[in-house]
Amino acid sequence: MRITLINPNTSRAMTAKIAAAAREAAAPDVEVVAVCPAEGDGPAAIESHLDEVHAAAAVVDAIRRDQAAGGSDGYIVACFGDPGLDAARELVDAPVVGIAEAAMHVAALTGRTFGIVTTLSRTLGRAQDLVLRYGFERACVAAYGTGIPVLDLEEADPAAVERIAAWCERVAWEDRADAVVLGCAGMADLCAHLSERVGVPVVDGVAAAVGLVSAMARMGVGTSKRDEYATPPHREPLARDAAVAGSVTA
Amino acid sequence: MRITLINPNTSRAMTAKIAAAAREAAAPDVEVVAVCPAEGDGPAAIESHLDEVHAAAAVVDAIRRDQAAGGSDGYIVACFGDPGLDAARELVDAPVVGIAEAAMHVAALTGRTFGIVTTLSRTLGRAQDLVLRYGFERACVAAYGTGIPVLDLEEADPAAVERIAAWCERVAWEDRADAVVLGCAGMADLCAHLSERVGVPVVDGVAAAVGLVSAMARMGVGTSKRDEYATPPHREPLARDAAVAGSVTA
Amino acid sequence: MRITLINPNTSRAMTAKIAAAAREAAAPDVEVVAVCPAEGDGPAAIESHLDEVHAAAAVVDAIRRDQAAGGSDGYIVACFGDPGLDAARELVDAPVVGIAEAAMHVAALTGRTFGIVTTLSRTLGRAQDLVLRYGFERACVAAYGTGIPVLDLEEADPAAVERIAAWCERVAWEDRADAVVLGCAGMADLCAHLSERVGVPVVDGVAAAVGLVSAMARMGVGTSKRDEYATPPHREPLARDAAVAGSVTA
Amino acid sequence: MRITLINPNTSRAMTAKIAAAAREAAAPDVEVVAVCPAEGDGPAAIESHLDEVHAAAAVVDAIRRDQAAGGSDGYIVACFGDPGLDAARELVDAPVVGIAEAAMHVAALTGRTFGIVTTLSRTLGRAQDLVLRYGFERACVAAYGTGIPVLDLEEADPAAVERIAAWCERVAWEDRADAVVLGCAGMADLCAHLSERVGVPVVDGVAAAVGLVSAMARMGVGTSKRDEYATPPHREPLARDAAVAGSVTA
Amino acid sequence: MRITLINPNTSRAMTAKIAAAAREAAAPDVEVVAVCPAEGDGPAAIESHLDEVHAAAAVVDAIRRDQAAGGSDGYIVACFGDPGLDAARELVDAPVVGIAEAAMHVAALTGRTFGIVTTLSRTLGRAQDLVLRYGFERACVAAYGTGIPVLDLEEADPAAVERIAAWCERVAWEDRADAVVLGCAGMADLCAHLSERVGVPVVDGVAAAVGLVSAMARMGVGTSKRDEYATPPHREPLARDAAVAGSVTA
Amino acid sequence: MRITLINPNTSRAMTAKIAAAAREAAAPDVEVVAVCPAEGDGPAAIESHLDEVHAAAAVVDAIRRDQAAGGSDGYIVACFGDPGLDAARELVDAPVVGIAEAAMHVAALTGRTFGIVTTLSRTLGRAQDLVLRYGFERACVAAYGTGIPVLDLEEADPAAVERIAAWCERVAWEDRADAVVLGCAGMADLCAHLSERVGVPVVDGVAAAVGLVSAMARMGVGTSKRDEYATPPHREPLARDAAVAGSVTA
Repeated sequence: MRITLINPNTSRAMTAKIAAAAREAAAPDVEVVAVCPAEGDGPAAIESHLDEVHAAAAVVDAIRRDQAAGGSDGYIVACFGDPGLDAARELVDAPVVGIAEAAMHVAALTGRTFGIVTTLSRTLGRAQDLVLRYGFERACVAAYGTGIPVLDLEEADPAAVERIAAWCERVAWEDRADAVVLGCAGMADLCAHLSERVGVPVVDGVAAAVGLVSAMARMGVGTSKRDEYATPPHREPLARDAAVAGSVTA
Repeated sequence: MRITLINPNTSRAMTAKIAAAAREAAAPDVEVVAVCPAEGDGPAAIESHLDEVHAAAAVVDAIRRDQAAGGSDGYIVACFGDPGLDAARELVDAPVVGIAEAAMHVAALTGRTFGIVTTLSRTLGRAQDLVLRYGFERACVAAYGTGIPVLDLEEADPAAVERIAAWCERVAWEDRADAVVLGCAGMADLCAHLSERVGVPVVDGVAAAVGLVSAMARMGVGTSKRDEYATPPHREPLARDAAVAGSVTA
Repeated sequence: MRITLINPNTSRAMTAKIAAAAREAAAPDVEVVAVCPAEGDGPAAIESHLDEVHAAAAVVDAIRRDQAAGGSDGYIVACFGDPGLDAARELVDAPVVGIAEAAMHVAALTGRTFGIVTTLSRTLGRAQDLVLRYGFERACVAAYGTGIPVLDLEEADPAAVERIAAWCERVAWEDRADAVVLGCAGMADLCAHLSERVGVPVVDGVAAAVGLVSAMARMGVGTSKRDEYATPPHREPLARDAAVAGSVTA
Repeated sequence: MRITLINPNTSRAMTAKIAAAAREAAAPDVEVVAVCPAEGDGPAAIESHLDEVHAAAAVVDAIRRDQAAGGSDGYIVACFGDPGLDAARELVDAPVVGIAEAAMHVAALTGRTFGIVTTLSRTLGRAQDLVLRYGFERACVAAYGTGIPVLDLEEADPAAVERIAAWCERVAWEDRADAVVLGCAGMADLCAHLSERVGVPVVDGVAAAVGLVSAMARMGVGTSKRDEYATPPHREPLARDAAVAGSVTA
Repeated sequence: MRITLINPNTSRAMTAKIAAAAREAAAPDVEVVAVCPAEGDGPAAIESHLDEVHAAAAVVDAIRRDQAAGGSDGYIVACFGDPGLDAARELVDAPVVGIAEAAMHVAALTGRTFGIVTTLSRTLGRAQDLVLRYGFERACVAAYGTGIPVLDLEEADPAAVERIAAWCERVAWEDRADAVVLGCAGMADLCAHLSERVGVPVVDGVAAAVGLVSAMARMGVGTSKRDEYATPPHREPLARDAAVAGSVTA
Repeated sequence: MRITLINPNTSRAMTAKIAAAAREAAAPDVEVVAVCPAEGDGPAAIESHLDEVHAAAAVVDAIRRDQAAGGSDGYIVACFGDPGLDAARELVDAPVVGIAEAAMHVAALTGRTFGIVTTLSRTLGRAQDLVLRYGFERACVAAYGTGIPVLDLEEADPAAVERIAAWCERVAWEDRADAVVLGCAGMADLCAHLSERVGVPVVDGVAAAVGLVSAMARMGVGTSKRDEYATPPHREPLARDAAVAGSVTA
């Protein structure tokens, strides 16, 4: 089984880190391919609604390229805002899962409640939209920004890790969350350390998405093509699409 | 007062029609400028999540161009999916209003309930997301697609108008909606006719947005720049952005 | 266009202040007429459910008088509890807007969240009822009473203004509200000062209602007369109504 | 124990009927006193928001009179819109219960769901407000107006009873409601007949309110005087209040 | 009228205490019979989901025994988790009320909001499930565990009472609850003292359930036997059921 | 990896069928062990709240036996009511997933909405409780009982399959559900046939649970032991527990 993981920002270092986390969580018969947009074809980091607009376009590009090359058994949108997820679902029959939704669904199975610890507080509005869209407004009891920018997570220094851990502890022990959801793909490599430190399950969306999308593929359950997510009406390619150099496989 | 109205699809005929509806609803001291993307720089119509991704990029482009040219006192996103609205708010201090939110807010003031009549049923999921985002899940008692594609509304034939009217009547008299919200900017010119025919207020989002955004500008109330909607972190321009020919003023 | 603004308490000083705020927010072609009940025909202030009962009766009286005199293009109920709003809508075809609903709708357009700062905490229950009725239970992230009685706002002293400002700052910066809604018509004159001081949009419902109701009138959108808000069954006048001396134009 | 039941409309026939239903449901040690406003001091029937405004004033009058005469151990607002209930609670320490809330609370204890069958469909909006206020938006699965005016229930003819029964059956067997709530005090005498006919519990709010308010009185549980429902600020009597002839004991 | 009260834990001391509270709240014509499982046939205390599983079985046993002996006019499940309530309703035509639901319904009638003070914090999840099931998610503004185990309440020492009182005060005066719900049948004897101390109504579910279930019996309103709560399909007795020594009447 | 699947009814034929479905959906390195209670130690079928009470006890028994024998890497409660799930989570550190929650989480990932098709309509109340508990009240757009008893599914005849298929089609094409959730473990073998017939994803909870619980085990994410789901207080074994003959491995 082949799963394509799309990091919609242009950081190759982060893409490699995410790919490693995904492979660690995959069953033996699952192959993970990780791609990101070429420099200049996507946002350097995704920390605003504006970045999300460009990230969504990058996700759509990556899906189309993979489909043109034969397609995969499942797709993962590896940015916590789940940008372009609805459009991605329109483009394929296979299952598509975003890491925010994946992390929330798994966290909900560890008990009753969870909290989110993310990068900049300005992204909390988008997280809140997703919590509501996915039905977790009662399960999600807290969401905090740490103030750490995404790209500082490419190689997180001990102080940053400490700050993230402190927020996770607050979520678990003051806000009474049964689990903590990490709000950025760039935190994937911290997950095991944080789980041990905090004492409750800490959930990384990348690993969660690998589990969910491969489970769906094994069950033969893909994206519903009923109406909303049916193949969209044909459009001539946009001029801007022709200018995209392409994605990179990390 | 100058209000810039952005139609994110490339139909000049529709842009002209929308501009006319906006001007009719504007106070004497309000100037409306209407723009749309050049052919190939935006979707021909917006009827899928994929189209929404491209529409959001077109909205962002248009806002940036207008800001570079001195800016406006308010902005309107004139597509019923309110694409790119959050990103547009990040980019300006002035008020920004989408036509879906505008229509829903005004419809809510006519009584207790409203229903939505739109183009293709595949867009109802997006409408439902917006209903929830704006808090109208109790007020909105029905939403239907007529099956009429957006571009057929450039010049709606009598059969299409009849079909839209029939759905409006169903919403009002079977679903017991106090008002009907028209789910496409391309229906703006039918509004008065439908109101009279149906017997309850029929609300066009373009006119509603003109009213709301000019009211906000008069009050000195713009977009909150507190955190989520503060100016986003600077990013180098994307390669694809350089390829955009620019927007057109209709 | 003529808009009648009804202050349901008997304070002429407050009515004059409200009228001034309304006129400042009105487009050049909008005439604002402000009325309040004669002394003894309405409550001196509206700070309890009991006061609301009497305020609702005063609103109904004022609407009937205005209708008998030829009617207006729109009506505003200028008390933050929106007393008598549903009954007022039954009595006219024109749009009717309460200042609580107006302020909340406009605040929602400035971003994602708002908070309310009002007079006595005992009125917060009514505010909460309205938040729920209008669909803003997710948007409204905080509501506080300052402990300042309504009539102290006729001419607010600097300490009172300072206290209100401090609560507004708490709402914006601790409760993370994108905007602040002022929970009393008597605070209308503080709005500009507070906006500047707090750093997020501060919304006065009187100005907001002028904007909304004149927008509706311009669009030709009034109150839905479908069923709930149709003209009510005829009743013989109540004995108590005959005893009312009438309203006063401020 | 003495419970005062307030019918806020002026129909003495209906007040007598309500009093009989209340007495039948009362424990042996409970005395029920039933009052209604004198002709001209309250609405003849309560079928609109306008009627509710006048009904609320009548409830307040009745409570004050009873308090002045020594007070009761509990109060019932015997109109399905629960008019003036919040104000009534401010005025007394004893428990106060409205028949809409009483019927809904009891219906909820018979199973999972209930439906409402009421008089004119124009009152359904108010019923919906109460359903939401009391937290029964999931429990209440349907609400219908029969089109029968309130005063036709003074002595309901067989055709009216048949129509009400048919709606009750629809609620139970098509909408799958475990119980039916009768949406008008004037239906109190039909309750036993309807229960037998329909095959699920049919709940009359008058009997339910007697049970609830006497249970509270026995427990020593009254109205919370914490803040919202504390005694309201003193106001000079309104001129209109002086014109009220008083209530009638039926 | 005969009401059977089922304490699903095996503490005879607690059963006697609960019975006394129930009798104090009952009308003169109501007889209360209180039972609990024999030692070894039910949990010693109910402080976990595991205990709830066993408590539910004990409730079912007790109902069956009472039915076999001729049945009662109403039943009370006297454990704050309302264990086995749905199953109990299937088994009888008479009304069945749990003390958690009873306390919440009565608390809701004292004003707008309530809070819960219970034993161990680990039971708060179950309380939250019930709050949601009964529709009180807006009314219930706080819920706290005191850390006092259930069996310590058999004879609460002054320090435990003080601790409970302190939490009640916090709920009323910091969380702004109009009433306090006691989250354990074992607190029934503290209710009057706490009400006086805290200054808002403190509601014991045992007394509340007596009031509600006897009100329903008087009205002739029992459990709906429509579909969900109809008599369940016949099953052969389980081997484990034969091993139960029976319940004890305290 | 070893996953223990617990069918809480005593049908060995059904247990075997469920085990087969689970094994088909498992990754190559996952071993599935399926158990059910011995005859007389659990309900023959689970079709009422009463059956759920006994099923919960059977789940607890099975978990304890498996723990005593060394434990598993994950547990599945294979009855659509998810009986005893909370108690099971208290008893282990490993992940525990119910098939109702599993099916709903997976269905939610196929699009926006799903519907449920189950056995007897009397079980729909429990399904509704779970929909709410898991946050799918907006995603779940319909739920129907087919009227087919659980044990008729041991070997479903063509007429029963046809009836189930017809309800699935109604859910997909009239209620506009993107996916269908099968509301009984006994339908597991029909899943592939129904998916093909209906044209949208049809989700079997057994396969879904295998995917979810093995994904969690791979991620190192188990049950949160924070407070609610921590190991429960020790209790002496109940007399009735000693009477249980034990579970059977199918």
